[in-house]
Amino acid sequence: MNVNPAKIALVLLVVTVLPLTPSSTMQVGLSEKVLVFPYETDFSFVALIPQKEMALRAFTLCMRVATELPEERQIILFAYRTADYDELNVWREKDGRVSFYMSGDGAFFHLPPLSTFRTSLCLTWESRAGLAAFWVDGKRSTYQVYKPGHSIRPQGTILLGQDPDKHLGGLEALQSFVGEVTDLNMWDFVLSRSMIQAWHYKHKVPKGNIFDWATMEYELNGNVMVVDDD
Amino acid sequence: MNVNPAKIALVLLVVTVLPLTPSSTMQVGLSEKVLVFPYETDFSFVALIPQKEMALRAFTLCMRVATELPEERQIILFAYRTADYDELNVWREKDGRVSFYMSGDGAFFHLPPLSTFRTSLCLTWESRAGLAAFWVDGKRSTYQVYKPGHSIRPQGTILLGQDPDKHLGGLEALQSFVGEVTDLNMWDFVLSRSMIQAWHYKHKVPKGNIFDWATMEYELNGNVMVVDDD
Amino acid sequence: MNVNPAKIALVLLVVTVLPLTPSSTMQVGLSEKVLVFPYETDFSFVALIPQKEMALRAFTLCMRVATELPEERQIILFAYRTADYDELNVWREKDGRVSFYMSGDGAFFHLPPLSTFRTSLCLTWESRAGLAAFWVDGKRSTYQVYKPGHSIRPQGTILLGQDPDKHLGGLEALQSFVGEVTDLNMWDFVLSRSMIQAWHYKHKVPKGNIFDWATMEYELNGNVMVVDDD
Repeated sequence: MNVNPAKIALVLLVVTVLPLTPSSTMQVGLSEKVLVFPYETDFSFVALIPQKEMALRAFTLCMRVATELPEERQIILFAYRTADYDELNVWREKDGRVSFYMSGDGAFFHLPPLSTFRTSLCLTWESRAGLAAFWVDGKRSTYQVYKPGHSIRPQGTILLGQDPDKHLGGLEALQSFVGEVTDLNMWDFVLSRSMIQAWHYKHKVPKGNIFDWATMEYELNGNVMVVDDD
Repeated sequence: MNVNPAKIALVLLVVTVLPLTPSSTMQVGLSEKVLVFPYETDFSFVALIPQKEMALRAFTLCMRVATELPEERQIILFAYRTADYDELNVWREKDGRVSFYMSGDGAFFHLPPLSTFRTSLCLTWESRAGLAAFWVDGKRSTYQVYKPGHSIRPQGTILLGQDPDKHLGGLEALQSFVGEVTDLNMWDFVLSRSMIQAWHYKHKVPKGNIFDWATMEYELNGNVMVVDDD
Repeated sequence: MNVNPAKIALVLLVVTVLPLTPSSTMQVGLSEKVLVFPYETDFSFVALIPQKEMALRAFTLCMRVATELPEERQIILFAYRTADYDELNVWREKDGRVSFYMSGDGAFFHLPPLSTFRTSLCLTWESRAGLAAFWVDGKRSTYQVYKPGHSIRPQGTILLGQDPDKHLGGLEALQSFVGEVTDLNMWDFVLSRSMIQAWHYKHKVPKGNIFDWATMEYELNGNVMVVDDD
């Protein structure tokens, strides 16, 4: 099945040119909701519209995620792409490691496996020293030093469910996400351990200033369900 | 060893024609009791008599189950059959996944393995969206979309311990259950997360309106023991 | 890459001859800090200066440690060497066991694997009966009897990150530590279970009288980062 390039182009247009203007297909707010990607496809994804431009020298990205996909299957968990670069892609790799890539080679982490049960997954990075870590259910991985001095470029497209290739239309079913995502939040700074643990336990934390699940602007494409989080 | 067709026919008669009439072999109430299936057989099973007809468009089925059977062994966990259909069968598959089938192909879930320790296992399904999930020790699996619009048919036979085949007498030792089952309850609606967690922790929850372990009507067949739950 | 023998010699000089005299490269105090060894090298290490001579007939050594190194990789966790002997080396072995060596053959323990998340690891030994045990997150391993009557010799060099060979310059990248170490403390006696558990939970315990992380004198060499423990 081929993806419709016009559709992708529209998403890019909406996201990059009119990020704050509601469109007929755009929806707002996912409080107490879960995104369910029920099947493997090359056309189902959710475009997320950030509250501010993603020119970033630090960030915290958090989400709760569950999947039944087998361990050896590559899975895209988050994709932020500008015209020429994968600015910030988060993957579960074929070898089970969790990784992220900013404009080139990635950083790879050995974490407990994603499973059918929800995992609280956060990723923190700051440009000054390049310290990067994943946080699983509030516990930090070992730090890695990754791309000190780097900046993430603004004005791209953020997708859940698919990895947009360099060539528009290059969505691959075998990289797609199948499962559930909820409570995705993103901040343009590194949250402290206590804040990340508070988020894990659903206590009060500062609202994400890039993405705030409760007020998220998003566009559903293909076969994605929005269901109550019981 | 062959099963006695007349015996099965009697069970079917008792269960489907006289569900609320005590017989010499029927017993009532399993509060604080555990059913122990000590050996692999093709003749040991427990027939359960529901409190109401099982014409269902939603349900929650819960039980506590423990088994020492090896991971690669298929195990029937619950079988509800009408004349022509396996209406609701729950299995541990050869590949370790837990599954359920309603009149045809099944839905398969990767769960933590059943073990010699007791697992709280619930299954929820509702017909409208087809959302199906297992709950292990109060934690929900990833949702799967399974047979939206389907209805379970009434007037069948419910067995623990064996899978009744289309042809009467088709019980197979290599599918039988060996181990312990207790606290099986069933409701004709989907319990909330908090209710399922309450059940897991043995707090007070609404009594099952299809099956209530404390007042269960059941008939023992073959080699099944009723022992105190210490 | 070869190590510079002069550099090692300097370290030995600083440590053994001027242990309490600050030098231009010596630093003091690691309270709320973590040592990050980001890459595999044969030149990155931290020399630790003890508060008193390490002539020991008993000790408790504690640290919090995290590593992403694969399970089959040998890792040096602590190295204390005098001119002719490895006085006290702590290893994660190739087979995953954790071990320690005092002047010869070692003692090997099956512990939960070190991981990307922090493990609280203590080691206790006393010379009288030779009782030795590791403590993981406050839980004691089975005791082993190891070298009763033995004494650890004073006036050596303590390194984190590398294992100094008999021949100066014999640092091996494939034995080096990669990951994080924090809160290393050492006492010249065996702490009680309740004290070790208190330390694990970061409650108040007697300050280490050989090493006290908060007032630690240390010298960084090669590529080691001191970062805030968030």
